[in-house]
Amino acid sequence: MFKTVEWKNNTVVMIDQRVLPDREVYNTYRDCKGVAGAIKDMVVRGAPAIGVAAAMGVALGALKIKARDMKAFKKEFDKVAKLLASTRPTAVNLFWAIERMKRVASDNEGLGVESLKKRLVAEAREIHRDDIEINRRIGKFGGNLLKDNSTVLTHCNAGALATAGYGTALGVIRGAIEGGKRVAVYADETRPFLQGARLTAWELKKDKIDVTLITDNMAGYIMKKGLIDAVVVGADRIAANGDVANKIGTYTVALLAKEHGIPFYVAAPLSTIDLNIKHGDNIPIEERDSTEVTHLKGKRIAPKGISVRNPAFDVTPNRLVTGIITEKGVVRRPYANGLKALFSK
Amino acid sequence: MFKTVEWKNNTVVMIDQRVLPDREVYNTYRDCKGVAGAIKDMVVRGAPAIGVAAAMGVALGALKIKARDMKAFKKEFDKVAKLLASTRPTAVNLFWAIERMKRVASDNEGLGVESLKKRLVAEAREIHRDDIEINRRIGKFGGNLLKDNSTVLTHCNAGALATAGYGTALGVIRGAIEGGKRVAVYADETRPFLQGARLTAWELKKDKIDVTLITDNMAGYIMKKGLIDAVVVGADRIAANGDVANKIGTYTVALLAKEHGIPFYVAAPLSTIDLNIKHGDNIPIEERDSTEVTHLKGKRIAPKGISVRNPAFDVTPNRLVTGIITEKGVVRRPYANGLKALFSK
Repeated sequence: MFKTVEWKNNTVVMIDQRVLPDREVYNTYRDCKGVAGAIKDMVVRGAPAIGVAAAMGVALGALKIKARDMKAFKKEFDKVAKLLASTRPTAVNLFWAIERMKRVASDNEGLGVESLKKRLVAEAREIHRDDIEINRRIGKFGGNLLKDNSTVLTHCNAGALATAGYGTALGVIRGAIEGGKRVAVYADETRPFLQGARLTAWELKKDKIDVTLITDNMAGYIMKKGLIDAVVVGADRIAANGDVANKIGTYTVALLAKEHGIPFYVAAPLSTIDLNIKHGDNIPIEERDSTEVTHLKGKRIAPKGISVRNPAFDVTPNRLVTGIITEKGVVRRPYANGLKALFSK
Repeated sequence: MFKTVEWKNNTVVMIDQRVLPDREVYNTYRDCKGVAGAIKDMVVRGAPAIGVAAAMGVALGALKIKARDMKAFKKEFDKVAKLLASTRPTAVNLFWAIERMKRVASDNEGLGVESLKKRLVAEAREIHRDDIEINRRIGKFGGNLLKDNSTVLTHCNAGALATAGYGTALGVIRGAIEGGKRVAVYADETRPFLQGARLTAWELKKDKIDVTLITDNMAGYIMKKGLIDAVVVGADRIAANGDVANKIGTYTVALLAKEHGIPFYVAAPLSTIDLNIKHGDNIPIEERDSTEVTHLKGKRIAPKGISVRNPAFDVTPNRLVTGIITEKGVVRRPYANGLKALFSK
């Protein structure tokens, strides 16, 4: 099985998700700038995977700091954290992971610089291990929600490639299958970056899970035909009221699900829930470069000089969400109470 | 200005819509097989343009028939009509145009073979001329529905490229602009064939109409932001009850429009209305080759051997349609009465 992101001999190794499924290439990053660039350029993507990569980027940055006294170290360390935080604005796991690393640094100043570096590397590796375990728990809770012989539609890739492994939305599918259920998947291709066509299709096929690819605009047709029993997607940030920011197009899929009486589940770890943001309208939405829309594999598919919008995410209002599947169980309406309660469990 | 399809020295010339916007290439067809192939392979597409091309294909086929007596001629002529009717199943304009040509042949047997051939060529050219005139009338009726300073979302290409010229949905936009209104357009790219990105963006830009390209799954985001005042699309077949078959994804756009309180208009000539079909579920929906989804410009974008669905159209139920704009005026609910009345006007 492939590894999405890995700490290896004081480097960070990531599968290059830009060239999948054509080639399975692993890039090695030796400093935090490299990791920051990889996050920005979407070598690695998916909220939990971005969190893990950012933590490893922070650890790698810390390792390379030459300062020997703690004060000078902390000054450089803050720059490292800032660099990684500047890569992408929407997925809150990025900030969550960086904050966790910063807390470890603050709490362990007494260790001295060299020991703190080791402690930071250990923390990043723990975030990685934790993430897989969290996904397995999400998969178990979510798997119980799916019926035997069901067909699930998913949007974008919230799979092993979007996490340290196993996946959130695809973790739910894996959990159901491991629980003995037969589950087939429809994958939206997810323009413009084609995470569905390139990544979800690839990793499910590799796992021998029945997957059918459609373009994003076919989901309505497929649902109207009665072919979908449930929708499961991931999330990049969940507001305190249960509004969900996720890959562009998720909002439309949620509306379609509502229209057709299909349950719409969001699978995400607690690190995706941002209780500091009251509702979805306040979640910052990244707008990416227009060439993602106008070009495919380096080839132009639209007229030169055309105006383009390229919001990378949208917000699905909580009223369209049937349940949020976390590692601590499934939260249902009203979300404000349920989500808050997760953090005191 | 470009010409979508044209009768020229007893050949049919069409702009090759598969290579737009990269290249403006005109293909010349000298027999009905060539025209049939061009319709099937989407050199020409768009319901009204398919109708015009089919009529010209029938005329071209008739011209090439060697039989000198009417009985033998008619036998060959039926084969020509059958060939053209077998090209694509959903757009009813194809069958409408072929029927019109067959009626001319039946009604004019007395002319003798050579004169009948000329009569058929004249009829095809009249269908072409009529279509432009019809579009202009649609544009005038539809243009009145748009407010000044409005932004219109359109899906696929129902423009000059989808008709003999001027367009249906884009005809409405042109009509509004010619009426002195300021109109900006958002164009869905329209996967898998990218009619929006390649064709609508191209022809509107050529006409200096303000156009912004988005991927299909961004329409919900853009509407939620309050950026869209009206949706206008074309149609491939309208059932007697007002259900509308149009390019895959139209149904989703209509649902999104309803959700956001945005009027959803369908612009189409009477030749798109099929009173023989009671409701949309009975409209045949073409499923096209999977490579349209898995490949772009000859390059694979999905894993090898992946299962794919590729329905080319979907059906928007009449309850989501604010109005159907025809060359005889705008029809509103209840559609069954209004559509029927059009044909006795």
